[in-house]
Amino acid sequence: MMTSFDELVDSYSCIFFDAYGVLKSSAGVYPGVLDVLEDLRKRDKQIYVVTNDASKSPHRLAKAYERDGEPLVPVKRIVSSGLLVEDYLRNKVRSGWVAYLGKEAAAYYIAAAGLHPIPITEVTPEDHSPRCIVMLDDEGFDWFRDVNKVVNLVRRHNIPVVVANTDITYPANQDDLNVAAGGLARLVEVATGRQFIHFGKPDPMIFSKAFHLALDENPRLTKRDVLMVGDTLTTDIVGGNKYGVDTALVLSGTTLENQAQALIQATGIVPTYICGSILT
Amino acid sequence: MMTSFDELVDSYSCIFFDAYGVLKSSAGVYPGVLDVLEDLRKRDKQIYVVTNDASKSPHRLAKAYERDGEPLVPVKRIVSSGLLVEDYLRNKVRSGWVAYLGKEAAAYYIAAAGLHPIPITEVTPEDHSPRCIVMLDDEGFDWFRDVNKVVNLVRRHNIPVVVANTDITYPANQDDLNVAAGGLARLVEVATGRQFIHFGKPDPMIFSKAFHLALDENPRLTKRDVLMVGDTLTTDIVGGNKYGVDTALVLSGTTLENQAQALIQATGIVPTYICGSILT
Amino acid sequence: MMTSFDELVDSYSCIFFDAYGVLKSSAGVYPGVLDVLEDLRKRDKQIYVVTNDASKSPHRLAKAYERDGEPLVPVKRIVSSGLLVEDYLRNKVRSGWVAYLGKEAAAYYIAAAGLHPIPITEVTPEDHSPRCIVMLDDEGFDWFRDVNKVVNLVRRHNIPVVVANTDITYPANQDDLNVAAGGLARLVEVATGRQFIHFGKPDPMIFSKAFHLALDENPRLTKRDVLMVGDTLTTDIVGGNKYGVDTALVLSGTTLENQAQALIQATGIVPTYICGSILT
Amino acid sequence: MMTSFDELVDSYSCIFFDAYGVLKSSAGVYPGVLDVLEDLRKRDKQIYVVTNDASKSPHRLAKAYERDGEPLVPVKRIVSSGLLVEDYLRNKVRSGWVAYLGKEAAAYYIAAAGLHPIPITEVTPEDHSPRCIVMLDDEGFDWFRDVNKVVNLVRRHNIPVVVANTDITYPANQDDLNVAAGGLARLVEVATGRQFIHFGKPDPMIFSKAFHLALDENPRLTKRDVLMVGDTLTTDIVGGNKYGVDTALVLSGTTLENQAQALIQATGIVPTYICGSILT
Repeated sequence: MMTSFDELVDSYSCIFFDAYGVLKSSAGVYPGVLDVLEDLRKRDKQIYVVTNDASKSPHRLAKAYERDGEPLVPVKRIVSSGLLVEDYLRNKVRSGWVAYLGKEAAAYYIAAAGLHPIPITEVTPEDHSPRCIVMLDDEGFDWFRDVNKVVNLVRRHNIPVVVANTDITYPANQDDLNVAAGGLARLVEVATGRQFIHFGKPDPMIFSKAFHLALDENPRLTKRDVLMVGDTLTTDIVGGNKYGVDTALVLSGTTLENQAQALIQATGIVPTYICGSILT
Repeated sequence: MMTSFDELVDSYSCIFFDAYGVLKSSAGVYPGVLDVLEDLRKRDKQIYVVTNDASKSPHRLAKAYERDGEPLVPVKRIVSSGLLVEDYLRNKVRSGWVAYLGKEAAAYYIAAAGLHPIPITEVTPEDHSPRCIVMLDDEGFDWFRDVNKVVNLVRRHNIPVVVANTDITYPANQDDLNVAAGGLARLVEVATGRQFIHFGKPDPMIFSKAFHLALDENPRLTKRDVLMVGDTLTTDIVGGNKYGVDTALVLSGTTLENQAQALIQATGIVPTYICGSILT
Repeated sequence: MMTSFDELVDSYSCIFFDAYGVLKSSAGVYPGVLDVLEDLRKRDKQIYVVTNDASKSPHRLAKAYERDGEPLVPVKRIVSSGLLVEDYLRNKVRSGWVAYLGKEAAAYYIAAAGLHPIPITEVTPEDHSPRCIVMLDDEGFDWFRDVNKVVNLVRRHNIPVVVANTDITYPANQDDLNVAAGGLARLVEVATGRQFIHFGKPDPMIFSKAFHLALDENPRLTKRDVLMVGDTLTTDIVGGNKYGVDTALVLSGTTLENQAQALIQATGIVPTYICGSILT
Repeated sequence: MMTSFDELVDSYSCIFFDAYGVLKSSAGVYPGVLDVLEDLRKRDKQIYVVTNDASKSPHRLAKAYERDGEPLVPVKRIVSSGLLVEDYLRNKVRSGWVAYLGKEAAAYYIAAAGLHPIPITEVTPEDHSPRCIVMLDDEGFDWFRDVNKVVNLVRRHNIPVVVANTDITYPANQDDLNVAAGGLARLVEVATGRQFIHFGKPDPMIFSKAFHLALDENPRLTKRDVLMVGDTLTTDIVGGNKYGVDTALVLSGTTLENQAQALIQATGIVPTYICGSILT
């Protein structure tokens, strides 16, 4: 049942990695992961990090995978759901103020699209009429005051709300989960009856973004050359399957070894392979 | 289409009133309402307030309906969803510490059941193992810290969570909605995959509680003698209809006159009557 | 962890039994069950069958529990969700034609309320305007033609739809599940945006019905004297817990022994006791 | 508020048209539509039909837009959600038997992917173990027998279920809605707890398919050159907005003129433009 990641990778020229639970945890990159990345580079594999982490820019996210100051995953191969938000803002909003929920580092994606970020904490409904609200992270604002502020902004102005995260929770540390930006977004959607625009796995746009970046580098790439590696059935695996690429579930993150088969049976989400971790 | 409340009431001996949007707003009792209550009392109507407000005790809730220090609705006729929580704790939890979300006044219902309330803000997962968590109100705690605390308490201890409110939002003032305790409960349910125990309209237990209190006072009462008066289709009206009593929608609260017919058509929830307000 | 049902029952004077998975399967009453019922009767226990089966009348349901032509559970102690439908029709619809989905035997509950049943197969939207639609069973009509007929009747006439079943599926035999009337109701609700009126476990009204019947026989009964016995966490156990009575999960039906703990952990629905079956 | 479609189209080089409610109804192509298509072709517009209709092949769908035997929309510009199913089967299933729900014409997409279609009516769980189940249409099978068959196949074999339709209903004629394949899929998902793979608007993959086909014909195309024209906020408009293209809501289909503003306000889905129809 269990497959060796090292052998598996021979059959694919391009690997999409989820970040949390595969390459790293909240405590940093897992021991041994940089060796694997370096080895894959030597074997000429195209490597992408496909992540729902929009709390900071790809440049900052790439720093986790540096060895001796040299990036093992170049910035342009970090595909954050924030990039989808950036595309959306550029194509659909185009100019003006955009209110955001998240720490200051998350505002990167708004500025990168040529728009003006304003933190939700500074928005006063009387003085500002933002063109769009972007939910990027669960920190950097006061939940009580600012979630209620979003509810009422949306009710009054009918502006789009874009969410860089479909996850409801994320692992805050070894033992605890925290509610993620996607969970707060769900709360506001229920409270207002609105449908927000969610990017990030399992939605196929992030896989399409990564695939077309890889296709630009290698025009002969097909979906059969790609392997999506993730630790979560309901985001990484179901999304990869739907996009039409092979998928490997690793047991180094949220899915524990003794639960994997029961969860696969219960959800009907079947990965192409199961590996202990990318180290094995 | 519109019916006069004053005439309507002739056909019923017992009236259940929703509080917010019918008798009062966040700014206090509507002008003229105390006159109506006094008149109904003179006409020997049995009057109950049936409310999802569990933020304070029935004694405090009853104060809103006093005239010259005399209660127009006696305490024992204030049926708050908190009373259902109290019944649940007495029958099912029976003793021990109960963590609560809400202001101090909401702890009333826990103490009334003979248990020991502890505010969620003071719970440290290492030191306390509450027997139950009760979500009573949206204020009195820090949403970020304490909602995440509830997520992790529930994951570790598998204790029941009881919610005194099925409402997702409530009117904070003339213009704004706030997320209610029921909305936060929904968020934690989605985040943990658990089903909490919700009391309050439209759930039939609160109607059953009020009906049996009324039956104690008048053993000849039948459901046909009861009229439920409320401003919200999805709580007051659908719940009253299901419980088997006649219902009157008033347009003095969340349902605006120009939306009423469209909402009735869209939801399929049809009140027996529609009245402008209980004053008309 | 496992409790003997025989010993357990000493602490309670009144037992509510779920039918399927506890007393019987689609193949008939489990061997040994009639002996248990007879023994409980000798020990003066008040016994009720609390079931979401509204496919036939309580008289016919009671026949399953006869020994030598003598009923071990009298008809008036068979509490079917159909009785809640009957109450609803009597209190809220009162007269006229009521269209129903189900076999002919299910029409009992409509006639018992003094109304005129008409099978959905015979309803022609031009000729009939039923006052209410009742979904009682998944057989006795053509799903394609008649489910679509319900969709369009509801859209045009805004009449109430009452569902005698909250279950999505039921066991058709040892190996297979079938979609239940509650599943079809859910489909029509999604298709029309309407909220139907659902009776049956876990909704508290069926527990309240059974409790008040028991209270009529024994005015000193309290909720602490009652034990709800069922094989399904999401109906029998969560509903009994919410209603405030003790609950026993038996492993003779849908919940298998090797899944019980995982399901309890995953759902947060904790029975007071777990028993192998009522025979042990 | 209302924009002339004829003027609007000057700003775009590529138009994506929804079929039902925009170009045609169940009774056929709307009068005047072929003239509009011919005119757009003369103005060198790239025209695509982007439709959730997977009941027949693109060749058959294209026939609706022929004039004197000449196609006004070539087959390769008919983007049916069935094409996404075909891609999925080719990339992920690759070979073997595939059971399908739909009329015979819907099997086209399975054969086109090089796999062997078998109608669900002919599947006997003992004799066949299909590699995948595809839900393409709501006709061509017996709902009672075959929907229950799908429930039990999925429970036993944990095979993927692919749905060519996210719609819950479709207009059967001027007055009536029918439950669509997407509605039946939702029912089976709820009954089994599984997540199926849904293609079709509002999911972005169908927009991505159409955009990349258009890009192949015109490598200088950008998303700003594309206009999505549809009659339904919750599929055409929300999906187009998310994909990053401009959107025009037409009032010739499911969204009536007197409801448009209320629906936009209620859902928060705002089209870039509103037009009476593509004729005006």
